Amino acid sequence: MPRPIKRISKAKGLPPGTLVHIGEKKVEKVKMTKIIYDVDHFDEKECLNIEECLAHKDEPGVHWINIDGIHQTDIIQKIGDKYGLHPLVLEDIVNTDQRPKMEDHVDYIYVVLKMIYLNDKGDLIVAEQISLVLGNNYVISFQEKQGDVFDPIRDRLRNNKGRIRKMGADYLAYALLDAVVDGYFVILERTGERMEALEQKVLISPIPKTLHFVHQLKSDMIFLRKSVWPLREVISAMMRSESKLISQNTDIYLRDVHDHTIQVVETIESYRETVTGLLDIYLSSISNRLNEVMKVLTIIATIFIPLTFIAGVYGMNFKYMPELGWPWGYPLVLGAMLLVGLVMVAYFKRKKWI
Amino acid sequence: MPRPIKRISKAKGLPPGTLVHIGEKKVEKVKMTKIIYDVDHFDEKECLNIEECLAHKDEPGVHWINIDGIHQTDIIQKIGDKYGLHPLVLEDIVNTDQRPKMEDHVDYIYVVLKMIYLNDKGDLIVAEQISLVLGNNYVISFQEKQGDVFDPIRDRLRNNKGRIRKMGADYLAYALLDAVVDGYFVILERTGERMEALEQKVLISPIPKTLHFVHQLKSDMIFLRKSVWPLREVISAMMRSESKLISQNTDIYLRDVHDHTIQVVETIESYRETVTGLLDIYLSSISNRLNEVMKVLTIIATIFIPLTFIAGVYGMNFKYMPELGWPWGYPLVLGAMLLVGLVMVAYFKRKKWI
Amino acid sequence: MPRPIKRISKAKGLPPGTLVHIGEKKVEKVKMTKIIYDVDHFDEKECLNIEECLAHKDEPGVHWINIDGIHQTDIIQKIGDKYGLHPLVLEDIVNTDQRPKMEDHVDYIYVVLKMIYLNDKGDLIVAEQISLVLGNNYVISFQEKQGDVFDPIRDRLRNNKGRIRKMGADYLAYALLDAVVDGYFVILERTGERMEALEQKVLISPIPKTLHFVHQLKSDMIFLRKSVWPLREVISAMMRSESKLISQNTDIYLRDVHDHTIQVVETIESYRETVTGLLDIYLSSISNRLNEVMKVLTIIATIFIPLTFIAGVYGMNFKYMPELGWPWGYPLVLGAMLLVGLVMVAYFKRKKWI
Amino acid sequence: MPRPIKRISKAKGLPPGTLVHIGEKKVEKVKMTKIIYDVDHFDEKECLNIEECLAHKDEPGVHWINIDGIHQTDIIQKIGDKYGLHPLVLEDIVNTDQRPKMEDHVDYIYVVLKMIYLNDKGDLIVAEQISLVLGNNYVISFQEKQGDVFDPIRDRLRNNKGRIRKMGADYLAYALLDAVVDGYFVILERTGERMEALEQKVLISPIPKTLHFVHQLKSDMIFLRKSVWPLREVISAMMRSESKLISQNTDIYLRDVHDHTIQVVETIESYRETVTGLLDIYLSSISNRLNEVMKVLTIIATIFIPLTFIAGVYGMNFKYMPELGWPWGYPLVLGAMLLVGLVMVAYFKRKKWI
Amino acid sequence: MPRPIKRISKAKGLPPGTLVHIGEKKVEKVKMTKIIYDVDHFDEKECLNIEECLAHKDEPGVHWINIDGIHQTDIIQKIGDKYGLHPLVLEDIVNTDQRPKMEDHVDYIYVVLKMIYLNDKGDLIVAEQISLVLGNNYVISFQEKQGDVFDPIRDRLRNNKGRIRKMGADYLAYALLDAVVDGYFVILERTGERMEALEQKVLISPIPKTLHFVHQLKSDMIFLRKSVWPLREVISAMMRSESKLISQNTDIYLRDVHDHTIQVVETIESYRETVTGLLDIYLSSISNRLNEVMKVLTIIATIFIPLTFIAGVYGMNFKYMPELGWPWGYPLVLGAMLLVGLVMVAYFKRKKWI
Repeated sequence: MPRPIKRISKAKGLPPGTLVHIGEKKVEKVKMTKIIYDVDHFDEKECLNIEECLAHKDEPGVHWINIDGIHQTDIIQKIGDKYGLHPLVLEDIVNTDQRPKMEDHVDYIYVVLKMIYLNDKGDLIVAEQISLVLGNNYVISFQEKQGDVFDPIRDRLRNNKGRIRKMGADYLAYALLDAVVDGYFVILERTGERMEALEQKVLISPIPKTLHFVHQLKSDMIFLRKSVWPLREVISAMMRSESKLISQNTDIYLRDVHDHTIQVVETIESYRETVTGLLDIYLSSISNRLNEVMKVLTIIATIFIPLTFIAGVYGMNFKYMPELGWPWGYPLVLGAMLLVGLVMVAYFKRKKWI
Repeated sequence: MPRPIKRISKAKGLPPGTLVHIGEKKVEKVKMTKIIYDVDHFDEKECLNIEECLAHKDEPGVHWINIDGIHQTDIIQKIGDKYGLHPLVLEDIVNTDQRPKMEDHVDYIYVVLKMIYLNDKGDLIVAEQISLVLGNNYVISFQEKQGDVFDPIRDRLRNNKGRIRKMGADYLAYALLDAVVDGYFVILERTGERMEALEQKVLISPIPKTLHFVHQLKSDMIFLRKSVWPLREVISAMMRSESKLISQNTDIYLRDVHDHTIQVVETIESYRETVTGLLDIYLSSISNRLNEVMKVLTIIATIFIPLTFIAGVYGMNFKYMPELGWPWGYPLVLGAMLLVGLVMVAYFKRKKWI
Repeated sequence: MPRPIKRISKAKGLPPGTLVHIGEKKVEKVKMTKIIYDVDHFDEKECLNIEECLAHKDEPGVHWINIDGIHQTDIIQKIGDKYGLHPLVLEDIVNTDQRPKMEDHVDYIYVVLKMIYLNDKGDLIVAEQISLVLGNNYVISFQEKQGDVFDPIRDRLRNNKGRIRKMGADYLAYALLDAVVDGYFVILERTGERMEALEQKVLISPIPKTLHFVHQLKSDMIFLRKSVWPLREVISAMMRSESKLISQNTDIYLRDVHDHTIQVVETIESYRETVTGLLDIYLSSISNRLNEVMKVLTIIATIFIPLTFIAGVYGMNFKYMPELGWPWGYPLVLGAMLLVGLVMVAYFKRKKWI
Repeated sequence: MPRPIKRISKAKGLPPGTLVHIGEKKVEKVKMTKIIYDVDHFDEKECLNIEECLAHKDEPGVHWINIDGIHQTDIIQKIGDKYGLHPLVLEDIVNTDQRPKMEDHVDYIYVVLKMIYLNDKGDLIVAEQISLVLGNNYVISFQEKQGDVFDPIRDRLRNNKGRIRKMGADYLAYALLDAVVDGYFVILERTGERMEALEQKVLISPIPKTLHFVHQLKSDMIFLRKSVWPLREVISAMMRSESKLISQNTDIYLRDVHDHTIQVVETIESYRETVTGLLDIYLSSISNRLNEVMKVLTIIATIFIPLTFIAGVYGMNFKYMPELGWPWGYPLVLGAMLLVGLVMVAYFKRKKWI
Repeated sequence: MPRPIKRISKAKGLPPGTLVHIGEKKVEKVKMTKIIYDVDHFDEKECLNIEECLAHKDEPGVHWINIDGIHQTDIIQKIGDKYGLHPLVLEDIVNTDQRPKMEDHVDYIYVVLKMIYLNDKGDLIVAEQISLVLGNNYVISFQEKQGDVFDPIRDRLRNNKGRIRKMGADYLAYALLDAVVDGYFVILERTGERMEALEQKVLISPIPKTLHFVHQLKSDMIFLRKSVWPLREVISAMMRSESKLISQNTDIYLRDVHDHTIQVVETIESYRETVTGLLDIYLSSISNRLNEVMKVLTIIATIFIPLTFIAGVYGMNFKYMPELGWPWGYPLVLGAMLLVGLVMVAYFKRKKWI
């Protein structure tokens, strides 16, 4: 359940700023795309090598370079050299265990955040690290593997939908952030469904495996919170930032993302409380079951033990037991037994046990 | 139990500011009313189309436009165009999953909050989103469906009760807020009654269904808190706001609503603690029951098992068992059995089990 | 257990500032007293009607008007008119569900707080609302019913004890606050005694009724905290207040009350923790009992079930059972039974069950 | 367990500043000592009456007056008069229910704190109130009874050890504070030992009395925290204080005490968590025991109940039961019984119950 | 489990600043090394005595003195004299119970932190205290015993890897901090593995010993948090510090360590939550086991007790029991018994107990 952290695979003692990819290698080939656009123009191409993407750096318009796959550190290094990124920023880009954060490096703003999705089997929440570098007229985005989360934005750019082509690089960065946060809602909805299904199971058939699922859900919530919680501060820091890279027009959009992030965090918190409640239901369902089991045992034992005793009495071999000779002895005893049994049943009925 | 969030039904990737109604469609027809008033005049009418409501925008007096039903986005769009509202505000109005918040757009103040009421069956707390736009001389209020929560205010306006006709649009906005917060108290009182009834049930007949009700109540409390908690900040932000739209005279009234909101929040918190306590009572009631069941079993078994053993001994078929031939053997054994039984009963009496 | 809030009895939709008495009517007749004093003079009288109390408003000295009973709203209204109190303040005075608070209205300071005492049966903590209006040279105090909490202060005024006659109206207000806070200590001491008694009960005889008392105590603690907690802020606000109505000399006395309030709050918190601990003791006492019951059952059953089996074997009716014919068969079997029983007893002794 | 607060024994209604000793009277005779020292001189004497101690107030050097026993309020009053202490300070000195606090009265600083030690039986943590008045060139310390906690400081003064004789009154006050905080560590070490011993008991023999000790420990922790927690703020306030009575040289020493206090507080917190853990261990030990008891019962009953049934079958008196006539009937049945028993035992072995 | 604090072994009453080594003596011989380096030069030597290390204090380049072993207080004293360290700093260096902290003494910065590693048996987390003194052109580091944690840094210095030789003493201090924080990740990974293993055990075979391990893990988490938590503030204080000893270039590196520390703290917190979850799983596993045991007992007893009763009835010795004479009596009764047994089994099947 605890997701062990992997950072130590970094050879300890390496100087800071050394580019070593930390984390699972999720794709074979790195995919690089470059989009240059302004109100009137739109140019999109897939680069075969990184040099192609880095060319024409000073062409007018907003440049968006998207890198899918971060394990080839030489690519990252070349981008860093071209755009003058700090070695520690490059180290953070290739180390996928970063906590969401925002760093203002005057010439550019560096943002790390987590994209959340379900794994292929659909039973585990996994996170992918997204790095954004927002410069004067460019955004460079790094994903661990290809994904369709940014496709709607590409689509809006291509078809000139909404105001995105009219705005600057900061608006593009906002749009990417917004796309990631939108993805959280999908996960939350799925989690809500899992929780509802689990609640039914917990009430009806509380087996240990159910408990296992409850704990996995709880663990997922802890994981989600850890990934999303710092994002609040990140976006809040961007809003408060006095960087000239973020125009005042974009502020109101950031506030919108900020609201959504808070909504996500609050939903996670209320889900966590609900999961804790599930555990309580589980425990009391177990107690109820035990109660039911004990009632059956008690009813059967309490009815038959006295009857068996009576039978035992008349199974004794004393020579002088007058009842044994009575012609009505046997039916009388049977009747007495029936009576005792009925009294017991009536007692349990009154106790509402049966 | 977890109320899944619905925001994702928004087609992901739509540009921000696109008007798509998110949430349940609660009425068929949108109802639009317009009231214009000042100290001396009062004019109320139901508009057949939105253009009618938007006409005479510059007539003197306070204008109150109330829209019941927000699924017709063209109406919202026209209001937004007429009054110059930001596209994101319009998006928030039609998206009913907003967190309560207050946004100061200089020319107008936008407030979202939640109205709380019981559903028709009276067993579930549901929320409706209320949006208020407070401008220089106008208030536009949006409800998801028709409701009588604002009727008393209409009444006070019509009959010129209190100071409402003498004050400006900010006082009207306050009055609407106050009406919504007053509604919380009704829900809290009902919840308090449900809680008292539930406590009786938990103490007297703790069945699993009771547990279900306890958890539903807990879930209701989490839901309530999530709806009301941010309202504190909203009203607090309005009080601290330096907007010229809120006059200093209104501040003291806002402080009053603020006090009420804090009272609501604290009551919710203490209800939550009480519900948690109910769960504890439930669990210990279950334990008590188990104890009681086990005592009955133990008493019966402990009395009769030794007696059955004695009967078994004299049911053995050994040839040489002198007791069997004794004339007083049978009554003596019966007496011994009685004695053993009485000793047991006395023991249990001393243990206070019976 | 949850004390439902009553505010909704206010006819919803009434304009704010409407004087409607909310809460239980605790006395029949309103009692009004007026005291005017300075270092040299002391004048005390009971007023027959409110006009009598309001006369001589500008006479030199500190004026203290005390009103016992707040259900006659016309009296409150007349005081409000005479002293220029804001309608919302008057509404708060007659609405007994206020949260403790302090409002600085420049010309006067309005303070609401809760007096706590045990009900007549001594088993429930109830609260009464006290309102204080501190003006330039006057204090007006409102109680829900007659009580002796202010008597010692009257006494000190009459007999010129301590410095109270030498100080101004702010010192009088402090003295009244102090008297109320002193009352909390009485309640806390009683509660401490109840708690100690309950702890004995929980350890010795944990019956469901005990649990009920534990929960009542917990509920009392929640209620107390809700009443006292905001008082800290109230007094703290008075200390920090820059109102000219509170002289610097009085500040140090307010700090003293502030310390006492913190002491009360901390004691309530530690009582709450203790009550939570009581619940744990209760639950483990119940578990212990169950353990004890099960041990008795297990010991008896485990000893006699094998013996009964042995007796059953020799009660079988096979023709060829050589043991049955042995002269020593019966005593041997009895001996074997005794041995088995003793082995069992020894086993339980080693297990420390008996 | 709850330590009732005693403050109410103060006759309610006494004017503030009235000197009434609140708390247990811990010594018969008040002991007063006076030490005057500077780098070169050292003069120590025990005063027979308070006037003797108060004489020579203006002699050069640091004056340290120590009062052991605070129930003779006339002594406190005379000191107060001589040194110009505020009546509320005097009231706080004789009222032993103060919360640790620091008050800056410009001419002097008043500090209250709690000394902690074990009672004579060594099983209960008790607190004694220490008051310090730090003036220009004097420190007056008040203890409830004679104790050796300040002896090492007297010793350092006498023998001119360390820098204490070279420093001023503020350093003396620091040294006294440090001595008290050092005492906390002793108590914490003892408590740690008690906790370790208790943990062994809880794991090995969880009887109700153990639970009682666990709760006493928890209660002790609550008590300790309440006594020590505010001390952090006290020392922090002294550090931040801009009083000219505390020189900058002493600040670094205060920071040292501050660090120690934080260490004490954190240790208390982690002890509290450990005690809570002990309760969990206790509860699961109880559950384990119950499990063990039930296993024994189940094993015995499950083995012998079927066997007894078989014996019962062949104890029936039907005329036509062919098995009864078989020569090998008895040994066969015995063999079958053995087989059933062995199967049961094997089943339990596989279940790992035995 | 509670790790008792040892500070009291300090003879109480010693003047502050007295050098007494507190804590376990972990090595026999103190090892002292000195490295002097700048971009072009690198000089490393092991000093035989402390004077050798302290010589050439003013040689150009960064001086790094590393002391392994702090029990020889004369060495610490000499370093303190040479570099003008405050006596309280020296006291803190030799007292290994310090809380991580940072003190700015203008001429030098003093930092205490905890290095964490597993003990030799690998089952307990232990802490070693590291003290750093950062001066103008020197860093003095104190360890309790020799360790390889700083070896990679020595290596980077020797081989001029990365930028370390180009930077000043502050960068060296940062590198040492970073090395210590890197060590936390190793411990966390190990702990994560222990936790996963423990979770399997808890689900599959919940024996009391498992509980013991769970509590040890919890205790380890409390210990870890206590050691690491204050480090956040330490590094944060260094970042915010306006000391001229820390250049602005180093700030970004400190921010990096700060991020890592937060990551460590958050991981510890989520581990703590997971451990708490383990306890819940343990308790419900125990409950499940009890349930299973009780089911077996109930099934066996409920099937055989009625059958034994039937056998008992026909074992009675009444003269007139017609069934006994029926030729088919015995098989009929056997058949009836079989039927009863089957009905019972069917009942349990339907209940899903078997």
